[in-house]
Amino acid sequence: MSTYSPRLTRLIDGLRRLPGVGPKSAQRMAFHLLDRDREGAAFLGKTLGEALEGIGRCKTCRMFCEDDACRFCTPARVSAGSICVVEGPADLMAIEASTAYRGRYFVLMGRLSPLDGIGPQELGLDLLSQQLASGEITELIIATNPTVEGEATAYYLAEMARGENVKVTRIAHGVPMGGELEYVDGGTLSHALSGRQPL
Amino acid sequence: MSTYSPRLTRLIDGLRRLPGVGPKSAQRMAFHLLDRDREGAAFLGKTLGEALEGIGRCKTCRMFCEDDACRFCTPARVSAGSICVVEGPADLMAIEASTAYRGRYFVLMGRLSPLDGIGPQELGLDLLSQQLASGEITELIIATNPTVEGEATAYYLAEMARGENVKVTRIAHGVPMGGELEYVDGGTLSHALSGRQPL
Ligand SMILES: [Zn+2]
Ligand SMILES: [Zn+2]
Repeated sequence: MSTYSPRLTRLIDGLRRLPGVGPKSAQRMAFHLLDRDREGAAFLGKTLGEALEGIGRCKTCRMFCEDDACRFCTPARVSAGSICVVEGPADLMAIEASTAYRGRYFVLMGRLSPLDGIGPQELGLDLLSQQLASGEITELIIATNPTVEGEATAYYLAEMARGENVKVTRIAHGVPMGGELEYVDGGTLSHALSGRQPL
Repeated sequence: MSTYSPRLTRLIDGLRRLPGVGPKSAQRMAFHLLDRDREGAAFLGKTLGEALEGIGRCKTCRMFCEDDACRFCTPARVSAGSICVVEGPADLMAIEASTAYRGRYFVLMGRLSPLDGIGPQELGLDLLSQQLASGEITELIIATNPTVEGEATAYYLAEMARGENVKVTRIAHGVPMGGELEYVDGGTLSHALSGRQPL
């Protein structure tokens, strides 16, 4: 069968390393970059190099970090005594944007998923366990997603915290503020009902 | 609002230069590369650099080309006297894979689309016009896609060729070989009927 020239073939292979990009999309991306956005291709190449060289992970909270001092593990946040566990960096950012929390985080970079080979070790739970055992943590706030795997992860984390006598809470799930009941899905509504609070 | 660290923000911007990649996908790609496939990120960066440095366009057929001699414009192909016009590199490859054609190509890298600012000049039709006027071309085979824009482009190309007294043909559209009538869409069926041939 006929194939593209070597460098073009390699570029398509390179683009296929991106999650969610299949052979057809990778071709389309390669043609677009080469034909219409060589500047964009050069920019992407540069940002990849800079990111690989400069972005690591915080040794305390596991968030992506490019400075010696993690900006989510400042002394003020550490002294708050709480850890909020999230599945990924975007979840951390969403909570930061709400400005409702000013303690530390712990970023799992995933959720428990035995079928995909993601267990406690892959999520760095040994590190979290040490932090819970340090005696400096008064509350573990679990903010994993309300999915089957997120709930299973929450359950596992709660057991860990109880083993260290640390108070555990889970962020509330229910009808979004401003949301209309008739447009809210059944699962969310049943969560909202079972989590009802006295007025 | 809280934002990602500078290099991570730039990497997400870089990934957004890829066609079809929005802010959420770009984030997901960046996290995946940084957390699980740094080797893939390095490979992609390398292939981008190599491609930008080494891949150009053939001055005759406009196909992507990384050598001095375009492998689709060999003397043997040129002497065949025909040009097959396709919209993009993937179309050229599909025809090559069929092994049914051994003449030259002309790759438009697009189709006429006035609303998107894509006119004859963007598709290199001045170059094709020169080739048709050279007296060496006996047939222009139009293999643009059977879409509204592809058909409009075919019509425009046919007029150009007639102006130079070059024979024009259009590849046949109809029921795919092995396709079952009941699963073929109405547009294709009506094409197949109007293009019927005596047996
Ligand atoms: Zn940190
Ligand atoms: Zn060529």
